[in-house]
Amino acid sequence: MTDVGIVLAGFGNVGRAFARLSFEKRQFLEKRYGLRLRLRAVFRSTGGIRLGPASAAERLLAGDAARAEESPLWNPKLRMSAPLTRGAHGVLVVCTASDVHTGEPGLGLIRMALARGWHVVTADKGPLVARFRELRETAARKGLKLGYSAAAGAALPALDVGLGSLAGTEIAAVEGILNGTTNYILTRMGQGADFDTALREAQAKGIAEPDPARDIEGLDAAVKLLLIANSTMGLDLRLDDIEVAPLAGVGRRALVSAAKRGLALKYLAKVQRETRKIRAEVKVSAIPRTHPLFGVDGTNKGVTFLTDSMGAVTVTGGKSDPRGAAAALLKDIINIYRS
Amino acid sequence: MTDVGIVLAGFGNVGRAFARLSFEKRQFLEKRYGLRLRLRAVFRSTGGIRLGPASAAERLLAGDAARAEESPLWNPKLRMSAPLTRGAHGVLVVCTASDVHTGEPGLGLIRMALARGWHVVTADKGPLVARFRELRETAARKGLKLGYSAAAGAALPALDVGLGSLAGTEIAAVEGILNGTTNYILTRMGQGADFDTALREAQAKGIAEPDPARDIEGLDAAVKLLLIANSTMGLDLRLDDIEVAPLAGVGRRALVSAAKRGLALKYLAKVQRETRKIRAEVKVSAIPRTHPLFGVDGTNKGVTFLTDSMGAVTVTGGKSDPRGAAAALLKDIINIYRS
Repeated sequence: MTDVGIVLAGFGNVGRAFARLSFEKRQFLEKRYGLRLRLRAVFRSTGGIRLGPASAAERLLAGDAARAEESPLWNPKLRMSAPLTRGAHGVLVVCTASDVHTGEPGLGLIRMALARGWHVVTADKGPLVARFRELRETAARKGLKLGYSAAAGAALPALDVGLGSLAGTEIAAVEGILNGTTNYILTRMGQGADFDTALREAQAKGIAEPDPARDIEGLDAAVKLLLIANSTMGLDLRLDDIEVAPLAGVGRRALVSAAKRGLALKYLAKVQRETRKIRAEVKVSAIPRTHPLFGVDGTNKGVTFLTDSMGAVTVTGGKSDPRGAAAALLKDIINIYRS
Repeated sequence: MTDVGIVLAGFGNVGRAFARLSFEKRQFLEKRYGLRLRLRAVFRSTGGIRLGPASAAERLLAGDAARAEESPLWNPKLRMSAPLTRGAHGVLVVCTASDVHTGEPGLGLIRMALARGWHVVTADKGPLVARFRELRETAARKGLKLGYSAAAGAALPALDVGLGSLAGTEIAAVEGILNGTTNYILTRMGQGADFDTALREAQAKGIAEPDPARDIEGLDAAVKLLLIANSTMGLDLRLDDIEVAPLAGVGRRALVSAAKRGLALKYLAKVQRETRKIRAEVKVSAIPRTHPLFGVDGTNKGVTFLTDSMGAVTVTGGKSDPRGAAAALLKDIINIYRS
């Protein structure tokens, strides 16, 4: 049995789902993987909670969100440096919502964890977009793992497939439906709903970003595309290199007309090697019935890799909600200790 | 740079494709992964060839198949034990076509390699079906890797996703279109071709098993299902536990009638946990438009995992030909040395 210390930073939808899922799965994780996850501390912007083994606080965090929010256990003076320096090392789980330009507040936390010899898994995209190369190089230099499945498609295993399953191939292009909210909106509009209704439905499902502008203006898809393409195609793209056309402006008429021609309109994120350059874009694109992402509807996501020696390989599905993101964080933790 | 000794057993379509691909990719493998694959010897039923570094024989093997077949270099007296005992350890690449009941001739070769401290990657399903548990346990006990992606879907990353990307989930069911030949036949019949024509086309594409009865009677799909389900669901199914209905008997009328109702007929391989038992079957099944394998046509394959915490995750595509299988062998080798 391996004891793994966990410090959780960020206690929004994903952070809470992670606390709950790792509590629910504790026996399964022990039995199947020989891992005992020990949630040592949780931080949010207003303070932190230190946890003893199987303490009341741990059960509280794994339980009802509203009760956890109001708990008197939150200590506004607790600093993250404390649990990261005591006892055995472990994994910092980052569920903050950072700015994609500065990378803060997640960036500082990740740097602190790596400096202290902790592995990091993150659902927060901001620090990766801001300082992808720095963080990967720091982790590699220190022999630590930086897992970011949850930031690059969550339960959709885009990175695992692109890095592991396609090892030995050269990837000429990545195409993805990477944002569940916009895919849901397009699907519902194709069924007759209007844009605003469809957006509200997506928000009610808990899949929309806190600020839905990040979904419908394409930033969320662009960021995921950046992480997937840079990781799997060995590129060093920055956000500015991706041409992003917002979803707005697509009317129901265009959807119906595409359907009549046997095409589907999808909010497609794409990076492609061309003769002398890399082309990267996020825009509404018409794809034919034979395209492997044609049937990816509703809140589903999917990504296709075009390779030299394995042809086209596609992954689709995976829960788009906070529980799916929590499951992706958990997967990255398990795979750190398996390898 | 890591030198990896390779011994190749079996020199049919897949073995030749592996020799060619690893030769073509040698510079890429050095640059990207720091691996220098050294093909030390090749064996087929009629003899073996020992190879020096970048020797004439290696170039011959990587080149034209007909010339390689007729080469005077084949030595009928060479035994595999010789290259496996000299020098540094490496990987035995198994491309034989073994019996699924006895596991031979591949089983003996794999046992010999593991006993001598060599990793094994195999495209040959026979030894795995015959002695799956024994081979996995032997490899684990000796700290060696047994890679069998190429036997369980080849370039379709079924095992990677089921084992790695879904770590931490509980898999309730696996459903797959696992045989390219039968999927091609069903697709072509839906387009108006008759069974025999479609089968001949599949054979011409080099995707059919040497004995097409293994495809159309469901044995190939059942074997892949067995490997995927046993590996990812922690089961210990035997071939007899899988109910297999041959493809024969499906008429064009049924295909057309299904299409009219918005359904697709697929030769579906499925393992499902039920309340008190495991249900495993390979049979023609009607799936609706919303099923993630609905659009998997032609020589394509696909597999869907139904999980508790990540929902349904599907992988589709990947070349079905010998080059795709060779690429899967190469991937398994790279991942042995990366972990």
